[in-house]
Amino acid sequence: MNRRMVLYMVGTVIKIEAALMLLPLAVSVIYKESCTKDFLISILIAVAVGFALTLIFKPGSKVIYAKEGFVIVSLAWIALSVIGALPFYISGEIPSYIDAFFETVSGFTTTGASILTDVESMSKGLLFWRSFTHWVGGMGVLVFVMAVLPSVSDRTIHILRAEAPGPVVGKIVPKMKQTARILYVIYIVLTVVMAIFLLAGKMPVFDSIVHALATAGTGGFGIKADSVGSYSPYIQWVLTVFMLIFGVNFNLYYLILLKKIKSVLKNEELIAYIVIVVISSVAITVNIMPMFENLSDSIRHAAFQVATIITTTGYATVDFNQWPTFSKTILLLLMFTGGCAGSTAGGFKMSRVVLLIKKIKRELQKLLHPRSVSVIRMDGKRIDEATMGSLGSYLAIYVLFFCLFVFILGFETFDLESNISVVASCFNNIGPAFGIAGPASSYAMYSPFSKVVLSFAMLLGRLEIFPLILTFSPSTWVKK
Amino acid sequence: MNRRMVLYMVGTVIKIEAALMLLPLAVSVIYKESCTKDFLISILIAVAVGFALTLIFKPGSKVIYAKEGFVIVSLAWIALSVIGALPFYISGEIPSYIDAFFETVSGFTTTGASILTDVESMSKGLLFWRSFTHWVGGMGVLVFVMAVLPSVSDRTIHILRAEAPGPVVGKIVPKMKQTARILYVIYIVLTVVMAIFLLAGKMPVFDSIVHALATAGTGGFGIKADSVGSYSPYIQWVLTVFMLIFGVNFNLYYLILLKKIKSVLKNEELIAYIVIVVISSVAITVNIMPMFENLSDSIRHAAFQVATIITTTGYATVDFNQWPTFSKTILLLLMFTGGCAGSTAGGFKMSRVVLLIKKIKRELQKLLHPRSVSVIRMDGKRIDEATMGSLGSYLAIYVLFFCLFVFILGFETFDLESNISVVASCFNNIGPAFGIAGPASSYAMYSPFSKVVLSFAMLLGRLEIFPLILTFSPSTWVKK
Repeated sequence: MNRRMVLYMVGTVIKIEAALMLLPLAVSVIYKESCTKDFLISILIAVAVGFALTLIFKPGSKVIYAKEGFVIVSLAWIALSVIGALPFYISGEIPSYIDAFFETVSGFTTTGASILTDVESMSKGLLFWRSFTHWVGGMGVLVFVMAVLPSVSDRTIHILRAEAPGPVVGKIVPKMKQTARILYVIYIVLTVVMAIFLLAGKMPVFDSIVHALATAGTGGFGIKADSVGSYSPYIQWVLTVFMLIFGVNFNLYYLILLKKIKSVLKNEELIAYIVIVVISSVAITVNIMPMFENLSDSIRHAAFQVATIITTTGYATVDFNQWPTFSKTILLLLMFTGGCAGSTAGGFKMSRVVLLIKKIKRELQKLLHPRSVSVIRMDGKRIDEATMGSLGSYLAIYVLFFCLFVFILGFETFDLESNISVVASCFNNIGPAFGIAGPASSYAMYSPFSKVVLSFAMLLGRLEIFPLILTFSPSTWVKK
Repeated sequence: MNRRMVLYMVGTVIKIEAALMLLPLAVSVIYKESCTKDFLISILIAVAVGFALTLIFKPGSKVIYAKEGFVIVSLAWIALSVIGALPFYISGEIPSYIDAFFETVSGFTTTGASILTDVESMSKGLLFWRSFTHWVGGMGVLVFVMAVLPSVSDRTIHILRAEAPGPVVGKIVPKMKQTARILYVIYIVLTVVMAIFLLAGKMPVFDSIVHALATAGTGGFGIKADSVGSYSPYIQWVLTVFMLIFGVNFNLYYLILLKKIKSVLKNEELIAYIVIVVISSVAITVNIMPMFENLSDSIRHAAFQVATIITTTGYATVDFNQWPTFSKTILLLLMFTGGCAGSTAGGFKMSRVVLLIKKIKRELQKLLHPRSVSVIRMDGKRIDEATMGSLGSYLAIYVLFFCLFVFILGFETFDLESNISVVASCFNNIGPAFGIAGPASSYAMYSPFSKVVLSFAMLLGRLEIFPLILTFSPSTWVKK
């Protein structure tokens, strides 16, 4: 384990975070808010810690392996959340540090689960920071580091692999740094376009910016008590469309830029994603029709809630906790599928679902013809057996941790439906759940212990389990 | 596909069923009940159908492959349930045929989910038949056919594989027929011993016999409205111990007979099973202590409910639906693990859980050291990669069907907790669930459509999914 390099990278990420906090600082200055000084203090702490780490642990060798990749990503994300919680805590707007930490983890992991009971009373600077953490976490903070800093190591693919979601992680272009830059350029352009669409719907400037940031990261922090329920139907449709856009693999947007439209339309993950969105929306529309005055309202609310859950964003236009069981069941299942790999969405990922179904089909084939040999392909490319094997392991560890979290939440006095959906929501980085933590409610009533557990669930979900587990397993740290 | 052989075997199974119905017929004669004639009619129908099939489809070739094994087992189980439902329906004691079918499937699959709202008014003959279906289904009806009939084919291992539960199915002794016989002898002896223990506790003879049969199959049909709540603590402890005994792989009992005690004590699945039972019982005891007058009651009820759920039997001594969320969460998780492979218990099976954890460990190792090669062992034996691959596929298809059933039950107007636990209960062949179908309630309020769906879930769970899916997939029936 190249420990110096690990801590050096963590220090670098904290320095970047200090720089990122300049934006909410500027917002607080514009609105002449008292949290300006809280941001200044936080930035100073981040700069001090960041420089301390990078100076003390200047690495002799910059060689890293898969192992270091996992540890760097895990520790960087934890450090990011520990420091990122400071403005909330120092300002006193979130009096408990654990609550502030929960809120920040929820931000960076693009979950959007909130402990705030009165979000509308928060200062604009902090609201901006809250939504901005979604944006930063969405594409990945280490991808950002790769994109903006001079190449720190020629093995940075290990870091990208550990941070990027999905079963198969590839570079868009041969150079790692270029890949990271292309991803961020697409990300920024889409975010700006979205903000323009929101402004065009007469949404206030501040609201447009924070909603564009939070949607781009498929996060879901809102700035109103009813999430986005009070905005116009036009705004809600813009949000629906852009949530779905940010739930698609970004590589496809690069393919569009290269005018390879055919391969985009043939993308199996995209097809599965669209089919599921359409079918779920139609089924829910029919189911909730009696609850709304006209068909267009039903369609809008159904499509919005499907988009917000499948992309793991977590806004709400209505309290879907009050919907019939059939609709709630569909939403619960969508919580698990999640969006596409290589997007900012969380969850199990659509491509894993598609691959698992192919794996099942092959197994059935093998049972009928034990000596048959068949290769699994996706988008025409052969998926090797190692990847298929890991897929099974990933499903197993995913189910295992899901059960573990449901078990731990059992210590709370809430009902099973609440606990199961809260774990599903946090683990898949969605935000609102059913029951006690529905969209019209918050996570405030959970105990500090459960909040820490749920924070860990959010981090595990965002980083896809393995990196964090490896970081906390002693064998990773043992010298060979 | 050797269709003649398939239908011939199904006919044979139906003839065996006709013979098995002589027992409840005898019971109805002893108690001078009017259902005697209903059993006679049912037996006549079974004999007619059975002989029609075996005479018309006398196979030219007796060669079968894996494919035929799956289809024979699936169709035999469906036929068994269709015919087995006749006495309930003809007697009018269950007026709806769908209800009678549900009850019979629930019996043969050793689920124990009941649609009866007044079990105590049923005639003794039918109550006996109901519990006897558990016993027959527990060890497997085709295993029984192998044991008693002259060898029908030298490839009968394909049939055993398709019917026996667990990830790895082996023969105890080289000969298939001997294996089946040894299993049934152990099964019968244990059942008789259990009945003696119950009689020793002054349980009435009829009660002792039906409870021994239903416990041996880990089924769970009772004959009283409060399941076994009104029996003495001694009886409840006997039930607890024997439920746990029948949840252990029967191969281990054979090893005990061979005095290979060491290999029994080192059996990894057994260790995991005992550890989980003990920890769960202790945790629940502590959690429910405030609800009972003394510690011994808490221990008894905790141990009983843990045993009844993990072995997927489904009796109850109390309405555990009223227990705190923590205890309910543990029970819900135990619903999924189930008992040991090669026992009469259902569920995902303990050995699969153990193997999946090993698979996860190896995956973590591989992530740290991508070039490492490591072999997974269980009880010292190497598990080949094909088995590990199927394990991942089994988990995937298991999760997929679980989600599918929860989705379909969404059409009912009950709450999510009820629907999820009902699916967990039926799919894992347990019986009682939480919420609407708790141990103090029944499945009577589900719609006929849902009852058919849940019957299918029980069959899928008992036969471990693949055989039924293959039977209903067109490619199985296509000629090469």
